[in-house]
Order: sequence, then structure tokens, then C-alpha cells
Amino acid sequence: MPELHLLSPAGFKASAVYAGIKRRQRPDVGLLLCDTTATAAAVFTTNKVFAAPIQVGREHIASGKLRGIVVNSGNANACTGRQGLVDARRMCDLAADVAGCDAGQILPSSTGIIGRVLPMQKIERGIIEAGQYLGKSSEHAQLFADAILTTDTCRKSAAVRFKAGRQTLTLAGVCKGSGMIGPRMGPPHATMLAYLTTDAAIAPALLRKMLAGAADNSFNAVTIDDHTSTNDTAAILASGASGVKITTERDRKTFVSALNEVCRSLAYQIAADGEGATKVVRVEVKNAATEPAARAIARAIADSPLVKCAMHGNDPNWGRIVSAAGMAGVPFDPDRCILTLQNVVVFRAGRPVEFDAADLSADLKSPEVCVELNCRMGKASQTFWTCDLSREYITINADYHT
Amino acid sequence: MPELHLLSPAGFKASAVYAGIKRRQRPDVGLLLCDTTATAAAVFTTNKVFAAPIQVGREHIASGKLRGIVVNSGNANACTGRQGLVDARRMCDLAADVAGCDAGQILPSSTGIIGRVLPMQKIERGIIEAGQYLGKSSEHAQLFADAILTTDTCRKSAAVRFKAGRQTLTLAGVCKGSGMIGPRMGPPHATMLAYLTTDAAIAPALLRKMLAGAADNSFNAVTIDDHTSTNDTAAILASGASGVKITTERDRKTFVSALNEVCRSLAYQIAADGEGATKVVRVEVKNAATEPAARAIARAIADSPLVKCAMHGNDPNWGRIVSAAGMAGVPFDPDRCILTLQNVVVFRAGRPVEFDAADLSADLKSPEVCVELNCRMGKASQTFWTCDLSREYITINADYHT
Repeated sequence: MPELHLLSPAGFKASAVYAGIKRRQRPDVGLLLCDTTATAAAVFTTNKVFAAPIQVGREHIASGKLRGIVVNSGNANACTGRQGLVDARRMCDLAADVAGCDAGQILPSSTGIIGRVLPMQKIERGIIEAGQYLGKSSEHAQLFADAILTTDTCRKSAAVRFKAGRQTLTLAGVCKGSGMIGPRMGPPHATMLAYLTTDAAIAPALLRKMLAGAADNSFNAVTIDDHTSTNDTAAILASGASGVKITTERDRKTFVSALNEVCRSLAYQIAADGEGATKVVRVEVKNAATEPAARAIARAIADSPLVKCAMHGNDPNWGRIVSAAGMAGVPFDPDRCILTLQNVVVFRAGRPVEFDAADLSADLKSPEVCVELNCRMGKASQTFWTCDLSREYITINADYHT
Repeated sequence: MPELHLLSPAGFKASAVYAGIKRRQRPDVGLLLCDTTATAAAVFTTNKVFAAPIQVGREHIASGKLRGIVVNSGNANACTGRQGLVDARRMCDLAADVAGCDAGQILPSSTGIIGRVLPMQKIERGIIEAGQYLGKSSEHAQLFADAILTTDTCRKSAAVRFKAGRQTLTLAGVCKGSGMIGPRMGPPHATMLAYLTTDAAIAPALLRKMLAGAADNSFNAVTIDDHTSTNDTAAILASGASGVKITTERDRKTFVSALNEVCRSLAYQIAADGEGATKVVRVEVKNAATEPAARAIARAIADSPLVKCAMHGNDPNWGRIVSAAGMAGVPFDPDRCILTLQNVVVFRAGRPVEFDAADLSADLKSPEVCVELNCRMGKASQTFWTCDLSREYITINADYHT
């Protein structure tokens, strides 16, 4: 079977061009269009400072119907006042001309530097040019995936093919995100950007609910620097081109499972490509008192620069992990918990457990390390993904000049 | 006038010795004693994982009376179970023997690595030895100040002499803190450690209230890595040796003002000596909707690794500051606010303001930089102190091995 990609679900086409917004000659304006009107859902940033395309996107997604997505990288169109809104709407107008639809059926996205007015001449030319090169090949999917990248060092995509009854459905997605990653997206909330396609037919309300649920356990559970962006967006378009409508409880479960798989894969890829990352840190909080407590503890551990530096240095300095859990502001009892690093118990019931520090340190030199904290207080669990904190992170964020 | 120090207020003596707990031969066990029973108040960490000395300290401070403080550095006595409590109480017993008082009149403190049982043989010998060298000189004050340091690169102290009516009073303090600094201390909450002395006489309830207020606008308003420690402690001892009792409204105000000045100076010194710091970043949030909103916005900006990296790189990347304010989870409107960097307006009422980036970048190469965010929503203000985030921070926290 050939490798699946963003355009494997039937009914979609895409393209991207280099319009001169980014410094390096990489695609920076992209179009993803559905052949017909798609059922659509999106979650956006909860930051009170949100970019112009977020405001326009919230308006356009309200109908639950979209023809496509227009995106640029290199400039976030955030903190740009009224001009920013004019520019975001103009992007929709141009993409709508290409798609032959209303501007209200286009979701706009931007990512890059905050506080600069979009270079509209370049963007206008870029959208028109991209409209001339639309296609359905894996190369087209790759170009679109590349057009949303900023400090990312690699393209991020995931896809699954699954059965709904006897029918085969496909669900695919691409995303970007490497810095300013601490998404807290809510029904109509990342700068992470993620776009998903599927050929299933789904009612808008159901699609919305499924996306919000999937985002909470994927994009909203990844952190690089805990900085919720002004532009975070995750959107899904369901073309219905398979002719298979998701209605039965069994099909719903199958679809949710596929959606979760794709979203988690994309979120993992963001953590793995975190700015300066040399490894993924998986934080598994188990048996917390409540769901919010599990999430707060997982986030506190995943966000701690001290924990992330220790992981970078392969140092089993577990005191930093337990103390991060204790500062989460939610019920937590060190005298009950069991902390495991790479399957080695290091702290149990308030007391340190003897372990071979040299062995464990060697084991931490792994591309993925696992911190598991069993709270033994309830039944709630939460997985968070983050990365280590390296000198390279400082180089990227201090030496890079606006 | 000779320089003031921790033992300038009448009625105190101190000493410190190297007991072999720290790797480097620096003082690591200290005693600070009052000649008589002092009125005392303390605030401790709000982390749910708190060290054994915190638990014992909360018990001992309850009476509002103390004879002294015993402290060790190099080991936090945190996450050490029942043995940790036995050891913290033993420290008090030994210090009480020196002071000739009940163990309940001694406040114990520890700072250093989490999860290791205290080396009690060394500590016992250290306390007994320190008891033999007690004195009131500036050298004794310096030794005690040095005994509480861990990754700090310099000693931290502050003192003021002020008039209450015709009488002269002295208030002094020492502190430590460089990493794991994000204190949230509450009435009976910081690993920062701060110890204050004064020769004023003050009622315990009033002293408690004054210390809590001063801590909120000093130690609780400094962040290096937002990691609330298991051991944070700020304590004040009032010997009363001046014979001046603080009772009148005017004297209270004078005392509060002196206390705030000393606590702020100490907090500033913590920010300036933050792990890897090359500069202090002062975050001034003005005219926020409410006091909690002002604090949340100031903390969000001061905690953002993206903001801290930009300050390290002398980069006027103000979008990171505005977006940090927007993610604080409190009322904030970018269309109203005015953001000033080093007195240069960079963002006003939702729109970028033209400025000379090269000039401003040059101005950011300063040992103290100021970020001022005028929210124009209410009347609440909050100052926070932090430092930039450098490669040296990673070196200190990743390469240092437990």
C-alpha cells in the first residue's frame, strides 16, 4: 500500500508556493481545498490576544461548513489591529476565488512573527499562484505541509485507513509547531497549526465534539515552553466523498479512535521537534484525584525547566519531579505517590527508593523517556508530551532576532 | 557609619561552620540566635510537597516566639519520610542546647538536594561547633549568610536604619536563592530562604501580618524558573532589644516601609543572581482590572521562557510579551493596553508602534531592563522581578548531576 498522506482521503486537493515571506526559500503560502462543501470543525487558541485570522476563522467556522483553508507562514498577522482583519479577509477572498465559493467558506491561518502587518502583495501573488498548481498527489500534500512550518526542523504528518462496517475510510493530518507551544485550545483554541482531512461524512455538531475531545488529549497535552500562542488552530474537513456517513455508535467509536490516533501522532511529532529538543519526555500521571488534577500535575511536571534540564542531562533528579507535582495547586500527597523513571521506582510513599543512579542515567539517554507518577488518590489519568531543555533552545530564541 | 548587617539590630548573634555537607568547602551549617526570646513570624512554601523542616517550623512558629534559627545547606531534607522529621527535630534539639531554650523555640531550615537523608553525624558536629563560635560581628553575619547559599554566586543581604519617633531602629536580612525560585509563600509559605532581624519590639500577630504583606511584594514577586520549592521560608525575629515597641499607626507605617525595603532588596538580589542570569528583568504591570489579574499577568510575562530568551538576546520581540499577558487567564484587552520596553512604546491599542529596533536592542544590553505593561482596565499594579534565560542556566541544571 502506498504511504498515506493529507490528500489520501477522497475529495481534497492542495498546493503551496514560496511567496517570499520567509527568509529561506521554503513554501510559505498554502491552499487546502475540498472539491465540494465539507463539514468542518475547528478549535482555536484561548489566549486573550488572538490573531486576526483567528477572529475571522471563528466567524467562518460557525456554519460548520468549509470549502478550504488558506495559510501563510513567516508572519502571524497578530497584534496588527484593523489592518490585520482586512488582510485576513482578503486572504479568504482570494482563496474563495480559486475555489469558486464564498469567502465565508474559507478558514484563514497565519504563523510567524507577531506584530508585523502582512506583506499583502506577496501573499496575494502567492495565493493566486498556488491556485494554479492544485493537485492531489503526495507531492502536493508535502508542499502544503511544508508551507505551514516555521522553526520546525521537519514536516509533520500522520494518517490512518480504517473500516466503518465494510467500508474503508481515510483520516489524515499535517501540523506544525516547535516553539511557543503550550496549546490550550477550546471550542472555537495553538502556534501550533493542525489540519485534518477525512472522506467520511459526519454531522457538524458531532465532528466538533469529536475534534474537541481529540484535541484535549493530543495538542492540548503537548508543551514545549508553555506559551499559548496567539494563532493556535486545529481544523478538520470531512469531504464525505467516501459516501460513508458516521452515525452508528460503532462507527463513531471507530472514527474517534482513528481521530485520536492521528492527533496523538501529530502532537508527539511536535514534542519531538520542540525547539532544541534531543528527546521526548512522556509524562504519565495516573490515579489522580480528578481529571483536572491529573492534567494540572502532568502539565506542571512537563513545564518545569528544572525537570526538562535534568532530562537533558540524563540526571535521575526525581526531587524536581515530585516538587513540580506538589506545586500544581491541586490535591497531591507525596506520602501516597509512586514515582517511576524509565520503569525504575525512585520514590514511594514519601521516601526515596534505592536505585542504581548510573544505570538509570544511562537509560535516560534515550530518544523517549517516561516519567510515571502514580498518585494513588483516585482514578484520573493524563499523558503529556514535552521535550528536554537544551542550550540549543536558548540559541534559537535568543540569537534569532526580529 | 559602618555598613549595616544581619547582626546590626541589637540582641542577635550568629555563626556558621563547614560541616562537610557541601562539596566545596564553604559554610554549610549556621546558627542565628536571639539573646532573649524574640517575637517571630514566618511564611513557608505552599508546595504540597514540603520538606521535614517546614513541617517542624510550622509547629514551632505557632507560638509567635523563637530563640533562633538553625540551618544547613547542601541537603533539603525533603522527601525523606519519617527519618526527615526525626532529623529536623534533632537539629532543633542541638541548637536549643546551644541557646539554652526549648527545642520548640528553634526554627529549622534546610536547602539543597531533595530526597537524600541528612548526614546527621556531620550536622550534629556542625551545630555543636557553630555554637562555640557565636558572635555579633559583621564577619559572623557574613558567615551565616554564606552558610545558606547553594548555587548562588554571591552573598545576599540588606539592612536599613530608621527612626520610630526619636528612637533609632535597625532591620536587616539575609537570603539565598538562585534556582528553583518561584516562591508562593503564604501564612505559615519559598528554596528561597530569608531571615530577618530587628531590634524593634512588635506583637506576634502584627509581625505576622507585616511579614506576609512584605513577602507578597518581594519574595513572592520574584521568579527564576517558576518552580515553587519544597523548602521556601522567610522568617523574621524581633528581639525588642531597642526597647521601642511598634504600636502607633505612624510607627507601624515606618516599620512596614523599612520591612518592604529590605525584603525588596533581597528579592532583587535573588533575581540578579538567578541561575545563568546576565540581567534583571523588571516587569511592571499597571492599571490591571484586579490585584490577582495584575499578579497573574506579571507572573506570566516574567515566567515566559520566550520573553526571557528575547531579553537575553537583547531582542525587542514584544509580541512574546503581549501574548504572555493574554495567556494569563485573567481579564486583559490588547486593544487597550500600552506596552513599553525601556521607556519606548512598542505596542499601543492593538497596533504596533514604529520604533528604532537597533536603538532599543542596544538599550536592552543593560544590567536591568524594564517591561512596562499599562493594561488601562483598572487600578491594580504589580511589579515582578526575574532574569534572562541563558545557555548557562542549562549548563547549571543539566550538567550538574545528583
